[in-house]
Amino acid sequence: MPISPEAHTVKQFDVQLANLRNMVMEMGGLAEDQLKRAIAALDEEDLAATRETIARDRIINGLQLKADEECISIIALRQPLGSDLRLIMSLASIVTDLERIGDGAKKIARMTLHIYDGVSSPPSAKLLRDVKPMAQTAATMLHDCLDALARLDVPKALSIIHSDTELDQEFQGALRRLITYMMEDPRTIGHAINVVFIIKALERIGDHCKNIAEHTVYLVEGKNIQQRRNIDMNVVDALVKDVEMTWTNNP
Amino acid sequence: MPISPEAHTVKQFDVQLANLRNMVMEMGGLAEDQLKRAIAALDEEDLAATRETIARDRIINGLQLKADEECISIIALRQPLGSDLRLIMSLASIVTDLERIGDGAKKIARMTLHIYDGVSSPPSAKLLRDVKPMAQTAATMLHDCLDALARLDVPKALSIIHSDTELDQEFQGALRRLITYMMEDPRTIGHAINVVFIIKALERIGDHCKNIAEHTVYLVEGKNIQQRRNIDMNVVDALVKDVEMTWTNNP
Repeated sequence: MPISPEAHTVKQFDVQLANLRNMVMEMGGLAEDQLKRAIAALDEEDLAATRETIARDRIINGLQLKADEECISIIALRQPLGSDLRLIMSLASIVTDLERIGDGAKKIARMTLHIYDGVSSPPSAKLLRDVKPMAQTAATMLHDCLDALARLDVPKALSIIHSDTELDQEFQGALRRLITYMMEDPRTIGHAINVVFIIKALERIGDHCKNIAEHTVYLVEGKNIQQRRNIDMNVVDALVKDVEMTWTNNP
Repeated sequence: MPISPEAHTVKQFDVQLANLRNMVMEMGGLAEDQLKRAIAALDEEDLAATRETIARDRIINGLQLKADEECISIIALRQPLGSDLRLIMSLASIVTDLERIGDGAKKIARMTLHIYDGVSSPPSAKLLRDVKPMAQTAATMLHDCLDALARLDVPKALSIIHSDTELDQEFQGALRRLITYMMEDPRTIGHAINVVFIIKALERIGDHCKNIAEHTVYLVEGKNIQQRRNIDMNVVDALVKDVEMTWTNNP
């Protein structure tokens, strides 16, 4: 029995949406991988791996372009309404956050090249002491917010919003310690500034994870509590009117 | 004579699009104003004005929510295709850049409060020497990229992409000088780190202006050279097929 064109279109929409979700999760996996690579390369003073991490940022940027293209094409071809449209708009801005997390990993790699430039003597271990624990917090936030997005797990998403405050406090503490080291030994200032940019990049990666978590909450709520959100109801009402008008005005 | 529903819908689309354009330009004006306020307050050590700048960031964030809501509603109600859809998606990401420029101004204001905290002695003039010229470059870039967007002026937009390299060089020079000051007088380190974050915020504001300029170029090109862009033609072809299908499958 042949399926109706409506069912056909719905099926195509689900396929494209699944495709977009996969792209986003793939980008997320790459962003996680890039962060791990950047931190490992810094830890092991491996400049080849550092340069590879910088080069690999292009893969994430390429995926972002593909995902943006897919968002536009889904909206243009399928013309989704209400919560479907909100889902796609949310995924579109999650894509932006993932690309910026990739930039953060690249920034850490760039700073690694500055620190181990072969000219200045390598930094003392204590200068880099706070990087690993901060990177661990950021990596966990990134893993959890992608997990929460994949499972549409609101409690988990909310817990990430709390973790971000933790990471901000770690950043403040690390910054204070770096300033103390610089004051104790001004020769460390050159290296310390690079470390300041590294911990700043980690702190901002946390902000992007928080954005992703907030979009996940919004995305789920947008479906469940739509009835209680006037703004959504107005849009929905307007849509219904618009669709009715189209049907009454067209043969 | 009553106008046809099609003409009516087209007119409504133009009205909503003009409305969205106005919101974006209003956000741009506010972002310019916030940057000027943050820099003036730092220059005049005016903490009241600084706190006002921080509070006013909410206005830009509010406009962003309104603009995002408008983008979604235009797409949902008007279902624009091809270049119209690309225009709206471009405006949507310009909105994100403008919101982040506002965040940059807020960051500068926050650092101003750290610098003039009433506890530590105020910084020497030379520590802040590079802030004003960098802020001037950033403010000009912001003004010009909004101007280029308003007039869809591609040559001007391209010139902004070049100005960003200038600002990056100013940042590198300023950073080098700050490190030298810190080494000469470690007591300046506390203040100098705050100044580092200020010049970093200015450098990032330049990046967002560059994004806006690139979107302006893409936005204009997307209209003019569409014939030469396969990806657009594929989308257009698919759209035509889709529309034909809809008309043949529906009564």
